[in-house]
Order: sequence, then C-alpha cells, then structure tokens
Amino acid sequence: MTRGSSPFRVVLAKRPDGAPKASDFAVEPFDVQEPGEGEVAVKVMYLSLDPALRPRMNAVTDYSEPVPLGGPIPSPAIGVVTRSRSSLLAEGDHVFGFLGWQTETVIAADQLRKVDPARAPLPKWMSLLGLSSFTAYVGLKELGKPNPGETVVVSAASGATGAAVGQIARIMGARAVGIAGGERKCRFVTEELGFDACVDYKGPDFRRQLAEATPNGIDVDFENVGGDVLQAVFDRMNLYGRVLICGLVAQYSTSTPPPGPNLWPTVQKALRIEGFRASRYFDQLPAFIDDALAWAAEGRFRHVEHIAHGLDAAPQAFVDMLAGVHLGKAMVEL
Amino acid sequence: MTRGSSPFRVVLAKRPDGAPKASDFAVEPFDVQEPGEGEVAVKVMYLSLDPALRPRMNAVTDYSEPVPLGGPIPSPAIGVVTRSRSSLLAEGDHVFGFLGWQTETVIAADQLRKVDPARAPLPKWMSLLGLSSFTAYVGLKELGKPNPGETVVVSAASGATGAAVGQIARIMGARAVGIAGGERKCRFVTEELGFDACVDYKGPDFRRQLAEATPNGIDVDFENVGGDVLQAVFDRMNLYGRVLICGLVAQYSTSTPPPGPNLWPTVQKALRIEGFRASRYFDQLPAFIDDALAWAAEGRFRHVEHIAHGLDAAPQAFVDMLAGVHLGKAMVEL
Repeated sequence: MTRGSSPFRVVLAKRPDGAPKASDFAVEPFDVQEPGEGEVAVKVMYLSLDPALRPRMNAVTDYSEPVPLGGPIPSPAIGVVTRSRSSLLAEGDHVFGFLGWQTETVIAADQLRKVDPARAPLPKWMSLLGLSSFTAYVGLKELGKPNPGETVVVSAASGATGAAVGQIARIMGARAVGIAGGERKCRFVTEELGFDACVDYKGPDFRRQLAEATPNGIDVDFENVGGDVLQAVFDRMNLYGRVLICGLVAQYSTSTPPPGPNLWPTVQKALRIEGFRASRYFDQLPAFIDDALAWAAEGRFRHVEHIAHGLDAAPQAFVDMLAGVHLGKAMVEL
Repeated sequence: MTRGSSPFRVVLAKRPDGAPKASDFAVEPFDVQEPGEGEVAVKVMYLSLDPALRPRMNAVTDYSEPVPLGGPIPSPAIGVVTRSRSSLLAEGDHVFGFLGWQTETVIAADQLRKVDPARAPLPKWMSLLGLSSFTAYVGLKELGKPNPGETVVVSAASGATGAAVGQIARIMGARAVGIAGGERKCRFVTEELGFDACVDYKGPDFRRQLAEATPNGIDVDFENVGGDVLQAVFDRMNLYGRVLICGLVAQYSTSTPPPGPNLWPTVQKALRIEGFRASRYFDQLPAFIDDALAWAAEGRFRHVEHIAHGLDAAPQAFVDMLAGVHLGKAMVEL
C-alpha cells in the first residue's frame, strides 16, 4: 500500500476465531484533530506487541475493555511530540503511552511518560526498559521474592517478559530455569540470556527434563503460559512455593478455557497462587529504570528486539508474536 | 463389645475405597508401656474427629504421613495425666495433643499442651477453643484479612471450622455468608451462629442464591469443600480477592482429583489463592484462646458439639462427620 502523509491506523475488522489472522485487521486512513488544551499531537515511532492484547479482541472480556469492532487497536508505543498544548511536554519530546496502532495520535499529555533517548536507544525503552521487563521486576520483587539459592521457573522464557524474569532472578541470587518451545529458543535462553537451564516443553520427555533442571524442586513459578506446562511445574512446587500468574497465553485463543490444576497441593505445600497486574506497582517505575540501566551497564541484564517495519506489518507481526515465532521483544517501527 | 480395664485402640483395618466405612476400622486390645524419662501416661477422654484425617488414610499422601495399615489412628484428643515422669506435667493435669483413637497412651510431655477446665469445660477445648477454630482465626487474621464491610464466604459453614470463620469474620466487621447443604444446616448457620446469610448448595438455584447473598461480590473465600462449590464462589470474587484453601472435602474420597478452576480470573482480578496449615502459626495459640474466651463471654462467639460415646463409636462417628450428618464439632467421649 502506498500513501501520502495523511494518518493511517489499524482497526479490528473482525473478531478472531481462535488464533488471530492478519486478515482480522484492516488498515485505513483516519482524521486526527488538532490538540486541545492539555493535549499533545504525537507521531508514533515504535509499537509494542503484547500477548495481553489478544483477550481484549474477544466480544466479552473482564480484562480491561474489549477492543470495539472496527475500532483502533490500543497498544503501548513510543513516539515524538509534534505539537503541544500542555506545559508538561514540548515539541521534540519522546514519550511512551497507549498511542495505538496508528501513525499519529492526539492524547492528553498527562497520559504519557517521557523517555530519554540519551539514556538508552528508543527500542530499548520497550524491551529492556519496557512494561514486560517491569512486569518481571515487580513480580519477582513484590510477589515471588526468591531467596538466594531458591529455584525460579519461568515459561515462555525466550519472550519479552520471560527473558527478564530469568535474568532478574539470577541477579537476586536464585537459580533460573526457563521453559521454551524448541531447541533454538532454549539455546538462546541459556547462551544469550544466561539462564542456568532451559527445558523444551515440546520435547517428548519434558517432565523428566524439568525434573533434572530443578533437582531441588521449584520455589517460584512465573507463569506466562498455563495448561499442561503449568501443571508440570505445579507438580514440582516446594513447601511455601509461590506461583505467579502473569499470563496464560495457551488459552488466549480458545473459546472454552481449560480447567486449572487441582488445588490440593496448595494445602499440602501451603502454596500461594497469585495473579497480578504490573499497573498496581507503577510507582516503582523510576526505581526499575535505574536498576535496569545499572544492571545492563554491568553486563548482567540484556534484551533483544524483533522489529518489523511499517504499520501494514503490525497485524502479521502480532500474529507471529502470539505464535512465538521470534525471540525477544516484538515491536514495529513505523 | 464388653471389656475390662485393659487398653483398647482403633486401627485402620483396610484402606478406604472412596468414602470410608466403619468396617474399614477395627478395635483391638494393645499394650501400653510404662512412661520413660520425660514421658507421661495419659487416659484419653475426648477424641477430635477431623476431615484432614481422611487423606492420610490413602496409601500415598504428601500431606503428613499416611496412616499405616493395621496401625493406630492419629488424632487430636484431650486426656488426663495418670502417671508422669516429666517436670512439665503432673498427675491430674488435663492435656491436649495427638493422643490417637485409643483409651490410653504414653507420650513425651513436651508434645502436649495443658488445658484448664476452670477456663472452659473440656469439650469446649476441642470446639470453641480447638484447632478448627484456631484455623479459622489465623486464616482470617493472617491471610484473608477482611476489611470492615467486605464479604467473607465460607463453605461447610455448619462444620467445626466454618462455624468459627463466619463468627470471627463478623467480629472483624465483615459480612459473613455461609454455604451449607440443606435447609436445616442453613437455618443453624444464620439463626444459631448469626451469619448474615447462608446458601444451600444442594438447592436447584444455588448460583442465583449465592449472587443474592453476595450483592457486592466476594472479597474472601474460606474454602473447605472445593469442586463445583468453589467454582461458583470463584466466579464472584472481587478485584484483589483472597481465596484461602483450608480443605477440599469434596475430593477426599475420590481417587482421581478433579481439576481446579481455570486461573484466568486470577489475572483479571489480581486474585490470591493460598493454601495454608494452621501449624505454621502455633505461636498465636495463646492469643487465640484469650480472644476466643473474651468473645464467648460477650456472647459473640459460640460453638456446638456433636458428641458420640465410647471408642467403638469412633469409626461410625468419623464416617458421619465426613458425610456432614451432624452440626458443629464432632467428637467422641470415651
């Protein structure tokens, strides 16, 4: 598609039936108003692709509001302010916020957070310093609380959140064990991210491999997947273990949600299962940015990005991200 | 069975297949040794009957040790010291401990806790002041933490633990809603125990009744049952709700444990599901006894007992307790 300088956006053309397809989306021109008092106009530069968007594409959801049919796709993104009618932001400021899958937007300035490209390149503000990493950080600090020497397991270990969980767990002195699909991802997790071990859940002897990778059992499970993977981890939890439910990507595209694990082990082992939203802890964002940059400078915390190019590429890049095709944080550069 | 003064005990004759039957047990004479240094001989007076004993009757259990086939039945009980070789206890002292289903026992004095019949009649030390009540107390104080005006739901509400949960929840300023089987139990829960409401899970419109009894949703679930009852409660949990798994009596006699609820709501609502064992909080026992007696004196905390008579009656009384035949705390007077 060729186009001029008029704004374009991606809308939800039809509700996905099961796994989303690129054809569930449509790209269309739209009108952007001038910013009103307290608002800014933003040129969108990078879109973040996140699994949590998938459940919001269903007609009914209790998790945030559903995306309206024919409506724009809400999404975290980074952009640059082009016109400002707010004292909070000036033209040329780089900002992070829910800008949506669109080339431009007008938004209240107090809904945005300034990012400083002098501290880290812009894509790093969505990978290393982004909400996925922050979710890993507060999940471990506030809920998982691994003690030195304890074992932390994380599923979807090569994904944006999982990659951060294992590295931060190691920084906290814990043993980090990843679960990922396939040999390539497992090699990435151990060789590039430095996890102590990684287990391939697609392998025929997944449970035995998991047992070998967690000889002292599991103290903290950071769960991104659910289903059979969660059950296998659940069966190896230690007394007073903590199971953090961050996401359940295995069920995002199913219409009938699968049952969870039988809860008797919670009594046997005094386990805690806790779902959480990182937004509850947003006051810790500045501390996280400082910690993450310091760890990165010491070579202890890194992140890779998979960057697709152009707004038209967003739907397929989202589909690929959900299917776990690429390593690291998935984003789109406009 | 008639017998003289020689000691008798109940043993596990065969492992129950599903719901236990009285014929799974046998009563037999046995020899009691003289107490050694640090030990006391105790004449058993009251046996406590507790659901948690059921899973220990299976061949394999991760929850405490299994009861050995042909072995005595471990059980909390109250007795009186008849001979002492310990400075901790004197002849005539009343004690609480794991004395077992037997007429006499010899046990280390430091495994026992003195109870004072001047503060409350002996059966009250197993109902009002017993471990079931203590479990309700620490569960709410340490994990459920209901705020004034919040809604606490408890299943098996007419049972030993459930009865205490609702009353203590009200003392903490919460709305107490019980779930029980049948109209008689529900009337007992509201009229005798003072719960704000009670819902009959055997009723055809259980879910609608539960919704009516919890118009503001559910903040704390104190779960004793599991299965469909838990699922119905789970579906009404509020943001940041707490689900305490104390017991899952619905599955104690099944060989294939049923799945638990799908865990997506834990993410949607940032729920916490926590299993617990009251033994972790035994340092709070003295504070509990003081609180419970003070509340009882004010007329705000009461408990009833269902007392069977004679050691031979213990197996059938245990079977009846599991089946939920009687109201209140089940025990056996020897």
